[in-house]
Amino acid sequence: MARWEPNAVDRLQEAALELYRDPGYDKVTVAQLAARAGLTRRTFFRYFTDKREVLFFGADRVEALVRDGIHAAPDGLSPLEVVASSLAVIARFSDEDRDHAAYVRARHAAIQANAELRERDLAKHASLAAVIAEALRGRGIAEPAATLAAEAGLLGFRVGFERWVADPKRKKMEAHVGEAMRCLGSVVQPTTPRRPARPRRA
Amino acid sequence: MARWEPNAVDRLQEAALELYRDPGYDKVTVAQLAARAGLTRRTFFRYFTDKREVLFFGADRVEALVRDGIHAAPDGLSPLEVVASSLAVIARFSDEDRDHAAYVRARHAAIQANAELRERDLAKHASLAAVIAEALRGRGIAEPAATLAAEAGLLGFRVGFERWVADPKRKKMEAHVGEAMRCLGSVVQPTTPRRPARPRRA
Repeated sequence: MARWEPNAVDRLQEAALELYRDPGYDKVTVAQLAARAGLTRRTFFRYFTDKREVLFFGADRVEALVRDGIHAAPDGLSPLEVVASSLAVIARFSDEDRDHAAYVRARHAAIQANAELRERDLAKHASLAAVIAEALRGRGIAEPAATLAAEAGLLGFRVGFERWVADPKRKKMEAHVGEAMRCLGSVVQPTTPRRPARPRRA
Repeated sequence: MARWEPNAVDRLQEAALELYRDPGYDKVTVAQLAARAGLTRRTFFRYFTDKREVLFFGADRVEALVRDGIHAAPDGLSPLEVVASSLAVIARFSDEDRDHAAYVRARHAAIQANAELRERDLAKHASLAAVIAEALRGRGIAEPAATLAAEAGLLGFRVGFERWVADPKRKKMEAHVGEAMRCLGSVVQPTTPRRPARPRRA
């Protein structure tokens, strides 16, 4: 009979991060994943439907948190600010827990290294965008503004996240994401871009 | 010896749109595509490396046009306006040519119906985003502003494009895309969203 295993999800995720790098996502089997985690195949399938899902555990909880954040955001914010405030919660998970931050970085590298995982990541992104747009419509924001704000907010998050991943100074994710969101606001404002000076005639 | 075939690309694209619907992208062979177009396999391979490429012919030319548009855009525009003005060229291709518009709609439906084509479409999108960001950096726009403006512009284009596809009134694509771009600008401005009135106490 399957028994309760402490930290089974954490152990399987850790095993996945190791084995998806070597021998690689395509080569590793569920049995190998479970064995590396000191668990049985049967325990694996109590938590995940397939090996692709191991690195996407908790996506439902993230969606629920973001939805709640949008519903609870104060009035007077722009739609992008509403989305940004709800996504800041996700950034703080990593900023407040060094182990989680390390997991998030390793997970990102594993996903980028495999086409099937990238595809699943894109599908989760689309699902989260739909959840955000629906929550914005619940605040009275019409289409296409709701979809645009949802996608723009996720764009700001993604760009800030990637800068956080690449940052040797390890500034907080929330700071990187906040900068990207403000920058996104500024690129839609009229401005005079700098251009190289013309060479003078002799 | 292979000889010149008039409108070979158009004929192969038309054949692809028919056969990707029925019997379906996964089932159709290059030989069937060529035969439907009244051409040989050999002629097919003079234009395309594989059947996936048939619906992405001309992507290089689009990239070059958008790059040129960004370089030629006047000063004083916001980065998003620079991107929007360069993408308007693509919208006008459909607005000025009814046959092209019909092809673009049918192509969009074919791509949405197949995972492999969607994946290739995303890759072309990423390539175009990189071209746009590079052209913006050439105008003196730093990172992350260049990437954010490139992705935001493509987001506005995509949302406008999808509204054009779904529009029973057949308003011009340039108008739909322009509306989406302006809406994108507005969702980052502080605003007071409408909320449902609270029920009054009895």
